[in-house]
Amino acid sequence: MDDQVLLTGASGRVGRAILAGIGDDYEWRLLDREPPVEDLDHEFVVADITDETAIREAMTGVGAVIHLAGDPRPDAPWDSVLTNNIDGTRTVFEAAVDAGVEKFAFASSNHAVKHYETERRPDLYRVSDEFRLDGTEQPRPGNLYGVSKATGEILGRYYHDEYGISVVNVRIGNLTKGHPPRGYERGQAMWLSHRDCAHLFDRTLQAEYDYETVYGISDNDRKYYSIERAREVLGYDPQDNSAEYED
Amino acid sequence: MDDQVLLTGASGRVGRAILAGIGDDYEWRLLDREPPVEDLDHEFVVADITDETAIREAMTGVGAVIHLAGDPRPDAPWDSVLTNNIDGTRTVFEAAVDAGVEKFAFASSNHAVKHYETERRPDLYRVSDEFRLDGTEQPRPGNLYGVSKATGEILGRYYHDEYGISVVNVRIGNLTKGHPPRGYERGQAMWLSHRDCAHLFDRTLQAEYDYETVYGISDNDRKYYSIERAREVLGYDPQDNSAEYED
Repeated sequence: MDDQVLLTGASGRVGRAILAGIGDDYEWRLLDREPPVEDLDHEFVVADITDETAIREAMTGVGAVIHLAGDPRPDAPWDSVLTNNIDGTRTVFEAAVDAGVEKFAFASSNHAVKHYETERRPDLYRVSDEFRLDGTEQPRPGNLYGVSKATGEILGRYYHDEYGISVVNVRIGNLTKGHPPRGYERGQAMWLSHRDCAHLFDRTLQAEYDYETVYGISDNDRKYYSIERAREVLGYDPQDNSAEYED
Repeated sequence: MDDQVLLTGASGRVGRAILAGIGDDYEWRLLDREPPVEDLDHEFVVADITDETAIREAMTGVGAVIHLAGDPRPDAPWDSVLTNNIDGTRTVFEAAVDAGVEKFAFASSNHAVKHYETERRPDLYRVSDEFRLDGTEQPRPGNLYGVSKATGEILGRYYHDEYGISVVNVRIGNLTKGHPPRGYERGQAMWLSHRDCAHLFDRTLQAEYDYETVYGISDNDRKYYSIERAREVLGYDPQDNSAEYED
């Protein structure tokens, strides 16, 4: 890819995992609303995604976007997710389409489908359980943050259908560094290791797709999210499995 | 139903069709942001759905809500649908749940799924075509108004799953008075007569359901929306068919 890759929310947990893994492989334009705390050796734009003018400017020369910015708190209040996650995501999509961006990876969340767990837990967190969500199901958010992520997916559907931009929603599981969450079955079932995270987003920049929704987890024995679609469409080939770690 | 029924957007086209048909059958609390232009013989609250305090007050003693209020323009700008249709709908849901409302009918729209038509038109508007949307499909909005309606459906999913309130999304077709749209195949395929509209919303107040998405059209020969789910779950029994009118 000759153009730059815009990474919004670059200083967040997911952004840092991506840069740790594939920071040398692309010409990045990092964007975050706070200045970087360390020298990142990449172009860095300090801007809020709700600032339309700044986002349009940041999109110049960009061929692909990984959009992570937003309020990441599952218990975030409505006003914040309305502004940052819904309105902000719409601003990023609008600027991307106008700039001719070709690929757009959107950081969605397991919280967009969390209420599927309500009647099935804790069984679905266990290896013996064969229940799988595969990305074709309707959203069932577990909180207003999840509502905002499901809305981001629908915005992507619209911008893809209307303007042809390739969009992939990555419903990110539980990203932790070094080892899976301890003593937390759900977190182990949806663990995403740092290297698998970086590899997955690398695939969103390399693969060809139209509009997709995939789950972003490692190849955990406990999984209740299918990673088949990510394998098929993106060529995702995860290396980690929470079962390999002692709890 | 002993409690009152709150009808938001009561002065709009759908609201007037409902009141013309079943205005005598319930104890209504009508709500609109503009005062009524004629005496409607029902309690009337002038309030904007984005006014949380007013909406909470309007919810007192209410057992069911038909929520029609919002910007109805398919080409409405984003800021308006964000405020009126997304944020406003969230305000109405939140107040309804806090007031113990049992049933909530949400006026969704054909625009929430309009991009399914893109590759299939004009064939799907014709009697010979067997393609059907049935409400189980993912949204594919045709515009930002459609995005806002799809988001309202997801808000309903969340409020149902989290608080148990019964929610039905009615994806309303093309409501016209007296006869179907002339010279407009799409409008004839999704025609909703005034009496079928009133009857359908009557069923949303009478039937028992959990969370449903149905299409609000008459029993048109041309249809590409299935009305089977509305028949099964709500007992919808439409009387009109656009094929009965000369074009």
